[in-house]
Amino acid sequence: MPKKYKKKLDYSFTQGVYPTIELLTHKPEAVQQVFIHPNSTKNSGIDKIKHLCRKNRIRLEQTVQIFNRLKSPQNTYAIAFFDKYTESLSATEDHVLLMQPSDMGNIGTTIRTMLGFGCNQLAIIRPAVDVFHPKAVRASMGALFQIQVQYFESFREYREQFQDHHLYFYTLEDGNDSESAKMQTPATYVFGNEGEGIPHMYLEEGTAVQIPFETQKIDSLNLSVAIGIALHQRYIQKTS
Amino acid sequence: MPKKYKKKLDYSFTQGVYPTIELLTHKPEAVQQVFIHPNSTKNSGIDKIKHLCRKNRIRLEQTVQIFNRLKSPQNTYAIAFFDKYTESLSATEDHVLLMQPSDMGNIGTTIRTMLGFGCNQLAIIRPAVDVFHPKAVRASMGALFQIQVQYFESFREYREQFQDHHLYFYTLEDGNDSESAKMQTPATYVFGNEGEGIPHMYLEEGTAVQIPFETQKIDSLNLSVAIGIALHQRYIQKTS
Repeated sequence: MPKKYKKKLDYSFTQGVYPTIELLTHKPEAVQQVFIHPNSTKNSGIDKIKHLCRKNRIRLEQTVQIFNRLKSPQNTYAIAFFDKYTESLSATEDHVLLMQPSDMGNIGTTIRTMLGFGCNQLAIIRPAVDVFHPKAVRASMGALFQIQVQYFESFREYREQFQDHHLYFYTLEDGNDSESAKMQTPATYVFGNEGEGIPHMYLEEGTAVQIPFETQKIDSLNLSVAIGIALHQRYIQKTS
Repeated sequence: MPKKYKKKLDYSFTQGVYPTIELLTHKPEAVQQVFIHPNSTKNSGIDKIKHLCRKNRIRLEQTVQIFNRLKSPQNTYAIAFFDKYTESLSATEDHVLLMQPSDMGNIGTTIRTMLGFGCNQLAIIRPAVDVFHPKAVRASMGALFQIQVQYFESFREYREQFQDHHLYFYTLEDGNDSESAKMQTPATYVFGNEGEGIPHMYLEEGTAVQIPFETQKIDSLNLSVAIGIALHQRYIQKTS
């Protein structure tokens, strides 16, 4: 086994008890093997990991070596290797679409926020960060395993596959106020990347919306904060 | 000059053209010296830095050494050393209060979000991250220099100094819906830290509010996402 994760590998791994439980609970069929640390006995989640491994006939090993070899952060008590998998998005549910996202932390936080606000379909336009990177898995705190993710080579490819979705482009200017915008379903919530925003040529295919803020003070909101605000507004509308 | 930033030093530094311009614009009196990289000539912000240094009689030097010594990220074209300063919060304006925040990225993002939503008073209860750490300055993209920050040794110390503020505790359960809560001014928006939330003993001194989400799916929202949602709601109410 290599020491470092690489994008081209067909497997990845979780680090930590909580994301490992999430993986074993929601994607047991993808798990290759689980490792627990000898110092982990007092951690209350370890029993749950043992139970889930027994139930799903997954090999469990207690060793310290793999933790050292992967240079895991301190207090990492569980690691699970799993096969990467591909998924297809639903044609009827709402999507979040990220254009070429480049920040590992933002994508992890976004996935976690999506799960919290009941939106579990994520489209990503390449080139983009790898959601299976151990850092992204960790930042999502295992929420990744409950979210459907599909990558597309271009926005065109996405659009051809999902022609019925109403596109809402979150822009920094000239958009409708996101507060009062009535979203039609199925909706796609489109966010530009951290640097460049959304190419103007796409805007006419949907509705531009914006989250108001003091534009003379800051250039833009942090991407995962903006997504949080948008998905919170959606959640409030759906549940009220 | 030491190679690494340390919390006990009485100075810190910006890394990058944008945060350096923010520093020179909003806190010129704190600046000791500015360095620009020899490869920076094509960066449009460099002229602005030169102008601001001339105007404020601040020493400007072109050199590559300091960039190497501080192991600055690639494409860092400006560094400014500045004296750390202390500030006092306003008795009449709204505050954000963070209990023992421990994540450098979250604090930087929070400061930036505060500025974007017109709330520029930040109280921090120790032990806590250092807002002057170069990573926090960088994560705030220089927004730090437009936000008043005051540290307190305890919540008690804060409360004694600001007795007239109405406290709104953002909790994970048993709170009023943040959407419908009517905030009285001056308000303090209180957020627990990433791990532990808010001690129950404080709750009776104010109003518990919560941002609704799928609690059976995730334990909590990311701290900077939660703050973003709360400050966005405040901004909408103030401006509509």
